[in-house]
Amino acid sequence: MANLCVIGAGIAAVLAISLATAAEEDDVTLLKRAQELFQPLPKDMATPESPIIKERVDLGQQLFFDPRLTVDSNMSCASCHQPALYGTDALPTSIGVRQRLHPRNAPTNLNSALNIVHWRGDRESVEDQVIKALISPITSGQPDLKAVEDRLGRIPGYASAFKAAFADAANPITAQNIAKAIGAYERSLVTPSAFDAYLNGKSDALSSTARTGLQKFGVVEDYWLATGSTNIDKGRIDVTKDPADLYVFRVPSLRNVAMTAPYFHDGSVSTLPEAVRVMARVQLGITLSDADTSDIVAFLESLTGDLPANFATVPTLPPGSLVPKEK
Amino acid sequence: MANLCVIGAGIAAVLAISLATAAEEDDVTLLKRAQELFQPLPKDMATPESPIIKERVDLGQQLFFDPRLTVDSNMSCASCHQPALYGTDALPTSIGVRQRLHPRNAPTNLNSALNIVHWRGDRESVEDQVIKALISPITSGQPDLKAVEDRLGRIPGYASAFKAAFADAANPITAQNIAKAIGAYERSLVTPSAFDAYLNGKSDALSSTARTGLQKFGVVEDYWLATGSTNIDKGRIDVTKDPADLYVFRVPSLRNVAMTAPYFHDGSVSTLPEAVRVMARVQLGITLSDADTSDIVAFLESLTGDLPANFATVPTLPPGSLVPKEK
Repeated sequence: MANLCVIGAGIAAVLAISLATAAEEDDVTLLKRAQELFQPLPKDMATPESPIIKERVDLGQQLFFDPRLTVDSNMSCASCHQPALYGTDALPTSIGVRQRLHPRNAPTNLNSALNIVHWRGDRESVEDQVIKALISPITSGQPDLKAVEDRLGRIPGYASAFKAAFADAANPITAQNIAKAIGAYERSLVTPSAFDAYLNGKSDALSSTARTGLQKFGVVEDYWLATGSTNIDKGRIDVTKDPADLYVFRVPSLRNVAMTAPYFHDGSVSTLPEAVRVMARVQLGITLSDADTSDIVAFLESLTGDLPANFATVPTLPPGSLVPKEK
Repeated sequence: MANLCVIGAGIAAVLAISLATAAEEDDVTLLKRAQELFQPLPKDMATPESPIIKERVDLGQQLFFDPRLTVDSNMSCASCHQPALYGTDALPTSIGVRQRLHPRNAPTNLNSALNIVHWRGDRESVEDQVIKALISPITSGQPDLKAVEDRLGRIPGYASAFKAAFADAANPITAQNIAKAIGAYERSLVTPSAFDAYLNGKSDALSSTARTGLQKFGVVEDYWLATGSTNIDKGRIDVTKDPADLYVFRVPSLRNVAMTAPYFHDGSVSTLPEAVRVMARVQLGITLSDADTSDIVAFLESLTGDLPANFATVPTLPPGSLVPKEK
């Protein structure tokens, strides 16, 4: 069974699923076929090593929204993963601290613990991603992890929150615990959608248009050649040095795809119908009609879930300005 | 009666209120005295010219959180007025688009329609403030209002929201309507606190420490000389050219002051106890004891209200990336 969110987990594997042959099947058969291919979202994304502990999730939510972690205290995780834009920033490629340009599109952080890897497969977990982001010159600008720990140590309100989240630690404000807390928070951010209700057996959770779109649906990679990208990025080969990984990128989760324009790793396509047409041309070598495109878009819209309550609602941060003392 | 939020409405007027003489009064007398001096927050901040209309408030909430209004599509009103920091950014002075530095501290946008004027008294209303912010080189970077209107016209999801909010307009996406919508939203953001419950007659809404602090409480301006500011700002004189306005700034609302560090127009003081000590020294010429400072801080903490639901919870924005077409 292919989980829609871990498609591409093998990253180099091309997983081209087409349900086009099911076009004639009736609704019952379509549902069965879909249930063979896709899994509904789990309740959360905890693992034995990365459990969901309420105090950690709450602390992680605060840290996710706190701009004081970054070099000029003006950008947080939420600056590029904005709740109002479903965990994206509506930019082709993000603008980081001090106007530094990120080379790739900011993927949504919703359901992201299921994606395991980042665009080039160079992240082992959401926790690993946090550690790397905390010292990235683009997303953070901090010189090292100690600088981040020092910042939080100077905000009195965090002491009790870290103590509650990591009760056994003598000195709980560590980069590893920051990563565990933000990781626990991200592992709580799942967005079950109409398609999940459908996969759970509620056949009429999808409109007939969306069901038609599901029949036509395919998943594709190696799409970028058709997107008109002007800035060509070699992808996973930069990580593995394996020529087979040239131009290989993580197949992004399609969940909430209707809410997360622009599309593809370089944000080179700005509307969903256009993205669907590009995928069809590249994967199947066909030019989709407007009607076919609409059906597929209707299916993709059924993958939009509600924002998790602890992402739509921001936390209250412990007050305190850090900048004057550093002048 | 002095409304705590419109103190300083005359801006040049020094309004030094001290309740120190009430130190011996009993609780009933203290409450009566407070009710003579202060008004509780109103339910909202609508006026006949600026009514609260649900569709406008909802649209204004979207626009407030939308980064696509600004030149690089990466900063929204909420970037400097962050819900998680009670409508501030925890910076001495804000960092605007393209790393441009704002000369003054970002005041909270909560209850701000009652403050009428900006730091130097050069804003007529929250709507006027929005118009000026939309074309400020620091907060927006857009060349003119038409550029902002064009941006929103290119996001399909806004057409229906503007139509619903301004039903009579043939072409509702105008800068004036953007200002009216964000203004209506801001006029909805009130944060009633324990002190309001007290003013409404619930004497035990304040702890005895906070009541002691209330007795000692004074409001002060011309405080900056004592804050150690290194960057001296001439204040309202730049607007009025009247020598009497040298070093005159809006006395900021003290509501939520415990949540909105750092303090004063240049953010030069980073903790609330320190800010209280500075005010006492400048206004009264006295050095407060630690106990007196704690009492006053306890009173100021009673001015913290809950975040309004439509500020703590972000809206969902119509998706769409604008940048590729502008490349």
